[in-house]
Amino acid sequence: MIKITLPDGSIREYNSEVTAMDVAKDISEGFARNVISAKFNETTIETSTKLTTDGNLVLFTWRDDEGKIAFRHSTSHVLAQALEELYPGVKLSIGPAIDNGFYYDVDLGDQVISEKDFKTIEDKMLEIARGKHDFKMRSVSKADALAKYKEENNEYKVELIENLEDGTITFCDHDTFTDLCRGGHIPNTGLIKAVKIMSVAGAYWRGDENNKQLTRVYGTSFPKQKELKEYLELLEEAKKRDHRKVGKELGLFTFSQRVGQGLPLWLPKGAALRDRLEQFLKKAQKKAGYEMVVTPHIGQKELYVTSGHYAKYGEDSFQPINTPAEGEEFLLKPMNCPHHCEIYNSEPWSYRDLPIRYAEFGTVYRYEQSGELHGLTRVRGFTQDDAHIFCTPDQLDEEFKKVIDLVLYVFGSLGFENFTAQVSVRDIEKPDKYIGDVENWEKAENAIINAAKDKGLNYIIESGEAAFYGPKLDFMVKDALGRSWQLGTIQVDYNLPERFDLTYKGSDNELHRPVMIHRAPFGSMERFIAILLEHTGGNFPLWLMPEQAIILSISEKYEKYSEKVLNLLENDEIRALADHRNETIGKKIREAEMNKFPYIIIVGEQEERDNTISVRKHGGEDLGAISIEEFSKIIKEEINKTLKPFNG
Amino acid sequence: MIKITLPDGSIREYNSEVTAMDVAKDISEGFARNVISAKFNETTIETSTKLTTDGNLVLFTWRDDEGKIAFRHSTSHVLAQALEELYPGVKLSIGPAIDNGFYYDVDLGDQVISEKDFKTIEDKMLEIARGKHDFKMRSVSKADALAKYKEENNEYKVELIENLEDGTITFCDHDTFTDLCRGGHIPNTGLIKAVKIMSVAGAYWRGDENNKQLTRVYGTSFPKQKELKEYLELLEEAKKRDHRKVGKELGLFTFSQRVGQGLPLWLPKGAALRDRLEQFLKKAQKKAGYEMVVTPHIGQKELYVTSGHYAKYGEDSFQPINTPAEGEEFLLKPMNCPHHCEIYNSEPWSYRDLPIRYAEFGTVYRYEQSGELHGLTRVRGFTQDDAHIFCTPDQLDEEFKKVIDLVLYVFGSLGFENFTAQVSVRDIEKPDKYIGDVENWEKAENAIINAAKDKGLNYIIESGEAAFYGPKLDFMVKDALGRSWQLGTIQVDYNLPERFDLTYKGSDNELHRPVMIHRAPFGSMERFIAILLEHTGGNFPLWLMPEQAIILSISEKYEKYSEKVLNLLENDEIRALADHRNETIGKKIREAEMNKFPYIIIVGEQEERDNTISVRKHGGEDLGAISIEEFSKIIKEEINKTLKPFNG
Repeated sequence: MIKITLPDGSIREYNSEVTAMDVAKDISEGFARNVISAKFNETTIETSTKLTTDGNLVLFTWRDDEGKIAFRHSTSHVLAQALEELYPGVKLSIGPAIDNGFYYDVDLGDQVISEKDFKTIEDKMLEIARGKHDFKMRSVSKADALAKYKEENNEYKVELIENLEDGTITFCDHDTFTDLCRGGHIPNTGLIKAVKIMSVAGAYWRGDENNKQLTRVYGTSFPKQKELKEYLELLEEAKKRDHRKVGKELGLFTFSQRVGQGLPLWLPKGAALRDRLEQFLKKAQKKAGYEMVVTPHIGQKELYVTSGHYAKYGEDSFQPINTPAEGEEFLLKPMNCPHHCEIYNSEPWSYRDLPIRYAEFGTVYRYEQSGELHGLTRVRGFTQDDAHIFCTPDQLDEEFKKVIDLVLYVFGSLGFENFTAQVSVRDIEKPDKYIGDVENWEKAENAIINAAKDKGLNYIIESGEAAFYGPKLDFMVKDALGRSWQLGTIQVDYNLPERFDLTYKGSDNELHRPVMIHRAPFGSMERFIAILLEHTGGNFPLWLMPEQAIILSISEKYEKYSEKVLNLLENDEIRALADHRNETIGKKIREAEMNKFPYIIIVGEQEERDNTISVRKHGGEDLGAISIEEFSKIIKEEINKTLKPFNG
Repeated sequence: MIKITLPDGSIREYNSEVTAMDVAKDISEGFARNVISAKFNETTIETSTKLTTDGNLVLFTWRDDEGKIAFRHSTSHVLAQALEELYPGVKLSIGPAIDNGFYYDVDLGDQVISEKDFKTIEDKMLEIARGKHDFKMRSVSKADALAKYKEENNEYKVELIENLEDGTITFCDHDTFTDLCRGGHIPNTGLIKAVKIMSVAGAYWRGDENNKQLTRVYGTSFPKQKELKEYLELLEEAKKRDHRKVGKELGLFTFSQRVGQGLPLWLPKGAALRDRLEQFLKKAQKKAGYEMVVTPHIGQKELYVTSGHYAKYGEDSFQPINTPAEGEEFLLKPMNCPHHCEIYNSEPWSYRDLPIRYAEFGTVYRYEQSGELHGLTRVRGFTQDDAHIFCTPDQLDEEFKKVIDLVLYVFGSLGFENFTAQVSVRDIEKPDKYIGDVENWEKAENAIINAAKDKGLNYIIESGEAAFYGPKLDFMVKDALGRSWQLGTIQVDYNLPERFDLTYKGSDNELHRPVMIHRAPFGSMERFIAILLEHTGGNFPLWLMPEQAIILSISEKYEKYSEKVLNLLENDEIRALADHRNETIGKKIREAEMNKFPYIIIVGEQEERDNTISVRKHGGEDLGAISIEEFSKIIKEEINKTLKPFNG
C-alpha cells in the first residue's frame, strides 16, 4: 500500500502501481476527463506513470500552466511526426513548449517550409491527432538510443544523447513516431483539436552562430477550435494595440539614433500624458503624507559603493564618468534610494518625526544590451514614480498597508481591475544571494504577507524572487486582452539603513535604525504608459486624455462660434481643441476618430442658432444636439466614475 | 588748436595743452566739481593730463564705474603711504582697484597686520587724505626706476620694472609718497572722505604658490562717510540674506559629500518651491503656445559632435560614459537644444505648423572646478526652464517680442522691477570665435535690437559677449539690496538648424531652414531661487510661499478648532500648516517668524467662541481678530497684486 497526498492535504491509500489517472478517476470521473498532466514529488510525470512510493501528487487540467505546457509539448511531437511524413529525410533536434505554443527546430536539408505550406502541415497534424494515439514513455539504453539516431544520420539527437547518462534516457512513442524525450505529455493525441503553424524562422543549433542554421517551426494548439480562434483574434487585437504603434499614431514619443537607442524622447502629447499621470499621483501622495524631493541624476561612485549598488551592477552598467582635473568618478544613478538616504541623513530625526516619506519622479539610467530593448517596456533611461518611507519597526505593518491602499487607488483610477500580487521572498537555500541578516528578512517577509492578507489581496508567494536587498510585493495586472504585466512594486529594506547608518532618536533617547520601504505604484512612467496603451489601445480614461473633446466646425463660417464653445469648455475645465481647417467635415471626423478624441463636437448653422453642440462619442455613439452645460455634466459624471478622490 | 569731441558728439576747440579738467570747467563749473577721472582716445588719463592732439574725451564722475575705479585705485596709493609710515621697511608690490574697493599686496617682513590694527591704518589714511595732495604723474627712465627700488631692496617692484619697456615707465607722486604706476587717478587725496580696511589675507606674489606669500590688505573708500555707512549696512544685510544661509534656515536644499559637490539635493520645502515656480511658468507658457517635452539626460557623443558642443566643451567637461559591451559613448547633456532638434526632426513640418515651441524643465550637467562652486549659483547640475522656438525667418521679430513679454511677466510676478537688458553681439574683429555665417549673424543681431527697442527695454549692447552659436539678450536684475544679477536669457540661433539639417516646407513647396530661439526666463531653477532668496531674504511673494499661513493653537484644548480653521483655509485654497505642539505660544510665534510664515494665525478661547482667528503678518503687523472669510479676502487681494494672469 502507498499513501498519495493531494494538494488539499488529503491522503489516499492505494495498491502500489496505481497511475496518476487512476487517482484522478478515484476523485471523480468528471475531473479525470479534464486531467491532462501530473507532477509527483515535484517531478513531471505522465498521467499513465505508475506510482510506486508514498508521495505528493498534483493533477493538472488545461486551466493550469503545467497543463498547457504538457499540451503544447505533446503537440510538438505531433508536429515532428507530420514533418517527417511531409519532408522525407528531415532531421529533428529539439521541440519544447513555450509561452502560448511550442516550436520544433529541424534540419530540412535543401527543402524549405514557407507560409503556403502551413495549411498542409496543420491538416497532417490534425489527421494524426484524430488517431487518438496514446503517448507512451519507455527507457532505452544509451547504446540503443545512439544506434537509432546514427542510423538516421541525425547528428543533433546523437549529440544530445552523448551528453546524457546511461540509465536516464527515455523515448516517447505515439502512433508510428518515436522521439527522444524526458516526458510530460497529455494522455493521447486525440485531445488536440486545434493547431496552427504561426511562423518559421532560422535558428542556429544550440543558439551558437558557428553551428548550422536549422528551421524553427513555431506553432500553437488548443483543446477546442473556438479557443484557437479567440487566441488568434487576441493576437490581432494585441498587434493593433502594440504601444509602439499606438504611441506613434497618437504622437506620444519617438526615438532618435543620434540621441541613442532605448532613450525615449517624449513628444508634446506624450509629455502632457506623463504630466497628467504625475499630477494625479502627486495629489494622492500629498494626501497620503508624502513630500516631494528633487535629486541629481548622478552621484559619486562612493555613494553606490556605500549602497552596494556598485558591487551588484557596476561592471555591467553604464561606466563611470570622470572629471577632467579632479579625479572624481560619478555614475549615472541606477536607483534613487541612495540619494534619498543622503537627504534623510542631512538632519537628525526623532521617533516623533517618523514616518518620513520622500517621493520623487526620479529618472534613472540602467544599461541594457541593445538586443534587449523594446519600445517603452525595456529602455535605458526611465522615470520611476519612486518614494522611500523611513519608519520605525513598529510602523512597518501600518505603512505597508497604507502603501497597498495607495497602489489599489492608482490601479482603480486607471481602469486596471484585474490584478494579483506576488510576494517575493528569499531562496532560503541560497543565503549568499542576499545582503542583510536573517532575522530582519523574516520580519520584513512577515510584514508583507500580513499586509497582503489584511488588504484581501489575491497573492502568491514566490521563493527566490526577492531583490538582493529585501523582500517585495509586486502587482501583476491583467490588461483588456487578458495579458499579465508586472506593474507597481513595494519593497521592504533593512539593508540600506545599515549601509547609510540611518538613525532616529527613540523615546528611550537612544539611536535606532529606521526601516525603509521602497515603492512605485506605476513602476516607471515609461513602462506604465506602454501597458496603459496596450490595455486601452489609446482610449485612456477620460480624466487622463490630453484632449477630452475636439470641436469640428462644419465650415469656416462657424469658426467664431467654435471658438466661443472652446472658451466655455475651458471655463468648465474641459480640455478641448478646435479644428478650423478648411477640410470636409467627413475628413475631420475620421481624423478625430483616429486620434481617439473621446468626444467629437460638431458645430454648424443649427448649433450656432440654437446655442447647442452636436456631440458624438469616440466609436460612434451619437448624443445629438445638447447644451454646453449638459455636455459638461456628462463629462464630469464620466470622470467621477473612475477618478475618485484618494482618502487613504 | 586741437579739436576735442565729447560723448554727445559736440566738438570744442582749444589751444593745445588744455587739460581734461579745463574742458570740464569749460562745460560747467558745477560739473567739473564732480569730475574725478577721464579717458582720452580710449586711454585712461589723469584729469590734469595735457591734451595735445585732436581726440575723443570722456569725463567721469563718482557715478561712473570708471570714476569709482580711479577713486579706489587712488585710495590704494594712500593705503600704501599709510603702511610705509606705520610699518617701517614694508615692501610694496601691486595695489589695484577691484569691485567695491581695492587691495594692496605688501611684504611686511616679520611684522603682522591684524584686525585690531585696522583703525590705526584708517586714521592714518584719512590724515593723509585730508592733506589734499595732488596725484602727479611723471615719466622715469628704466635705469632710474630700477635704481630707486634696488636701493629700497624691493625685489617686487624691480621684477615689475624689468618687464617694462624703457620710455613707458611712469611714477605717481603725492605728498611724500611715490609709486610705480600706469596712471588713472582722481585729482587729489582730499576727495577721499571715508575709508575702511575690510580684511587681510595671504596672497602669493604673482599668484604662484612657489613664490613668497605676501599680505593682501583689502579696503574700500567713498567720497562721503554716509555712503560708506550705507555700503557696510548693505554688506551686513547681504550676509543675512546669503542664499546658502537662508536656504538652510528654511530647509530648502542641502549638499552631500557622498553625492558630490555642486549637486544640490532639494529638500521637501525646496522641491515644493521649485514645483510652484515650474507650475507658474508652465501655465504662462501654455497660454503663450509652448508645448512641454521630456528628453533624457544623456545623449550619444555623436549628438554633441553634430551640435558642435563636443568640440566646444568636450575635453573640459564631464567625460564620456562608455557601455560595457557595445562600444557606445554617451555624454551627460550640457544643453537641451540637441535633443529638441531631434524631436523637431522626428517629423516633417510645413510653414503652417510654425512656430513650434518646445519647452522642458531640462536638467543639464556641466563640469565646474570645485573651487568655482558656490551654493546654488555655481553648480554642476542644474535645471533650465528651457524652451526652443522653431520659426520662419519672417516670424523671428514677432517671436522674439513675445518671448520678451513672457520674461517681463515672469519678473513682474516675482517682484523684480528693476532690470536692464544686455544685447550681446559678436566681436567683429574675431570672426573665428563664432560659428555660422556673417549675414545670418547680422539678421539675428538686428532682430534682437529691434525687439528690445520695441518693448522699451533699458538696454546696452556689448560687443564680443555673444555665445559662440549666436547673439543673445540677457536680463540683469537689481535685487532689493541694489546688487545686479544676470537672470533670463534669449538667444537667436541660425547655427543649430544648419547642423541638424532642420527644415520645413514653405508656401513655395520648397524646403527651408527654420530659425531657432533658445530662451530661459529664470535661467536655471537653482540660480533663480538663489537670487530670489537673496532678493527677498526668504520672504517670497505670497503666491509662492510653500505655506502662506501657520495656525498656532494657544494650548492643546484648541487643537480641534485649529483643525477646523485649517480645513476651511484648505477649502479656500490657502496653503497652511497647524502647529499643535505642546509649546508656549511665545515659542511658537518666534519659530513661525523665523520660518518666514507670511501670516501667523493664533487660535484660543476667544477665537473659538467668536468663530474668528487672530492674525499677525510676518514682521509683526497685527490684523486683530477677523473672520476666515475676511482673511481669505486679504490673502487673495495680496496675491492678485503681484500675480496677474499672463495675457501675452
